[in-house]
Amino acid sequence: MIKTDILIIGAGPTGLFAVFEAGLLQLKCHLIDALPQAGGQCSEIYPKKPIYDIPGFPEVLAGDLVSNLMEQIKPFQPGFTLGERAQTIEKQSDGSFIVTTNKGTKHQAPIVAIAGGLGSFEPRKPLLENLSKYEDNGVAYMIKDPEVYRNKKVIIAGGGDSALDWSIFLADVASEVTLVHRRNEFRGALDSVEKVRHLKNQGKINLITPAEIIGLQGKDTLEAVVIQKTGGEEIVLSVDDYIPLFGLSPKLGPIGDWGLEIEKNAIKVDNTLDYQTNIPGIYAIGDVNTYPGKLKLILCGFHEATLMCQSAYQRIFPEKRYVMKYTTVGGVTGFDGTKKEAEKSVVKSIE
Amino acid sequence: MIKTDILIIGAGPTGLFAVFEAGLLQLKCHLIDALPQAGGQCSEIYPKKPIYDIPGFPEVLAGDLVSNLMEQIKPFQPGFTLGERAQTIEKQSDGSFIVTTNKGTKHQAPIVAIAGGLGSFEPRKPLLENLSKYEDNGVAYMIKDPEVYRNKKVIIAGGGDSALDWSIFLADVASEVTLVHRRNEFRGALDSVEKVRHLKNQGKINLITPAEIIGLQGKDTLEAVVIQKTGGEEIVLSVDDYIPLFGLSPKLGPIGDWGLEIEKNAIKVDNTLDYQTNIPGIYAIGDVNTYPGKLKLILCGFHEATLMCQSAYQRIFPEKRYVMKYTTVGGVTGFDGTKKEAEKSVVKSIE
Repeated sequence: MIKTDILIIGAGPTGLFAVFEAGLLQLKCHLIDALPQAGGQCSEIYPKKPIYDIPGFPEVLAGDLVSNLMEQIKPFQPGFTLGERAQTIEKQSDGSFIVTTNKGTKHQAPIVAIAGGLGSFEPRKPLLENLSKYEDNGVAYMIKDPEVYRNKKVIIAGGGDSALDWSIFLADVASEVTLVHRRNEFRGALDSVEKVRHLKNQGKINLITPAEIIGLQGKDTLEAVVIQKTGGEEIVLSVDDYIPLFGLSPKLGPIGDWGLEIEKNAIKVDNTLDYQTNIPGIYAIGDVNTYPGKLKLILCGFHEATLMCQSAYQRIFPEKRYVMKYTTVGGVTGFDGTKKEAEKSVVKSIE
Repeated sequence: MIKTDILIIGAGPTGLFAVFEAGLLQLKCHLIDALPQAGGQCSEIYPKKPIYDIPGFPEVLAGDLVSNLMEQIKPFQPGFTLGERAQTIEKQSDGSFIVTTNKGTKHQAPIVAIAGGLGSFEPRKPLLENLSKYEDNGVAYMIKDPEVYRNKKVIIAGGGDSALDWSIFLADVASEVTLVHRRNEFRGALDSVEKVRHLKNQGKINLITPAEIIGLQGKDTLEAVVIQKTGGEEIVLSVDDYIPLFGLSPKLGPIGDWGLEIEKNAIKVDNTLDYQTNIPGIYAIGDVNTYPGKLKLILCGFHEATLMCQSAYQRIFPEKRYVMKYTTVGGVTGFDGTKKEAEKSVVKSIE
């Protein structure tokens, strides 16, 4: 059982910044995210794209924003359960909550902050017979650890940035990379398209277009795929792994069944005070929540996370009164023993 | 008469960021600030101090945060009335407001956003007979344009960073710089104390401590000051300018008389929707406002500014419905004709 002060569901920018604000209040955080890395959409969907409306950044790449936030929260040593989806929640007699993931990992905390963005990103799956039989037995929809594919024969399907970028990356890792797309045209960064062209000409990527994968073969694990060239022949290709990258679509998912008030596919919160949901002790911050005038902007999530932490503190320590200290004045004292602070003034005579 | 869409009172970080959010909505802004430059406290009080709780910045100097914000809002060409205090407000029959400064500059806008921080920073003045007679005639409490002091005989009083830093700066501008402090010890950055010591030893700063200025002399303009050395002699020193730098203290000031609901020296706003005050069309954002759970943090001001702009837009264009577009998707189109946007994906076949 993982125990913490604030259990944050969703490790996007809002969830990450909550760790910092909680840390200033000496509260520890643990984050659960269905994606294999922190950063939410910023890392998974558009890491190389610029954001222009983060205050103080005339322009920042989404991936860099996440790196900065990870650096900012480092002193507060957050825990992470990644690649697992928060599935069920049970309220305990002591008022705390136990959240269990789809992989069975259990977490306990007096406060749960849902920072789930647009929901957990679920892969769009191809329509293939026996698909589920091969899931985790040769078929994967997201790449958690590329080393898994070292010296394997891999086939990737898709026509967007993910398919292009992973084909490029795995060209140096796998023994054989085949990229299949139902059109001749790919949609992605010019640079990625050019790189794939280059690797294809070098014989490092085997490109088959326009074509679709229409069948999977193998006794217990995947052994081969059947490829249908548009208007043409069928090819049976021996492979160890098939990775369909057809995009991710956000789903509120199991959180929708937790008894929370839902409106417009988002969780209703009390914006007049602390972004708490209808269940005391459960908050919702960032894009996952809704209230009158709500804007789904990262900068709003930062504010909501901050006010949530203050309220959580009061809930955990009803008898204490927290007096806010500016970081410029009080510095930042990490749980790892680090201390950052402004240079102190000296009092000195001049002779 | 200066006309704009949103008249922002206070050019600190919150007021500055409001320009950006208004710009995305194609609304123009003009800012009034009593200080001689933009940035509020960040520029005037602690430009060289680090802030640790701006989301995405593990550490940022207050002055750099202001520079970044100025860069971010540049495409939206804000106007500035600096070194003047917003004094009076009059509602017009068309629903707009006219705000007049202490120097008589008039501004008209349908929306007024007060982003006044802790108030306008008023200098602490020395208790000296005839002081007001010499104000703007040889006595100044803030340095707006250092060139005014070129080849002048200047006396500075004070023992903190401002007194140290301006003595150092003016040592190269004025013909004579005298620094007077009632103690031998100065309180400031070690580096500044050392620099003053060095300039004193070079004969570029004339240091008199412990001492106080006890009298001002001159027919119409200042001609000399009387200095009393502690427990010692009186000196009459011929000077052109006397600059007492005894710190600034924030005062809500004339805004307190505008008919706005005030609580705990701050302006009450409706945090359930748009941070509007009790007077429709007048908003208050950032440290100047109060509501249940309010935290006086820069990051909260950013959020409040953003929601305020949405509400202002609806007030100005009640018939239009604004559909928010992410900057990553839509880019930023400046009033100056500039356009920033993410690199577009290409659709390209690979042969």
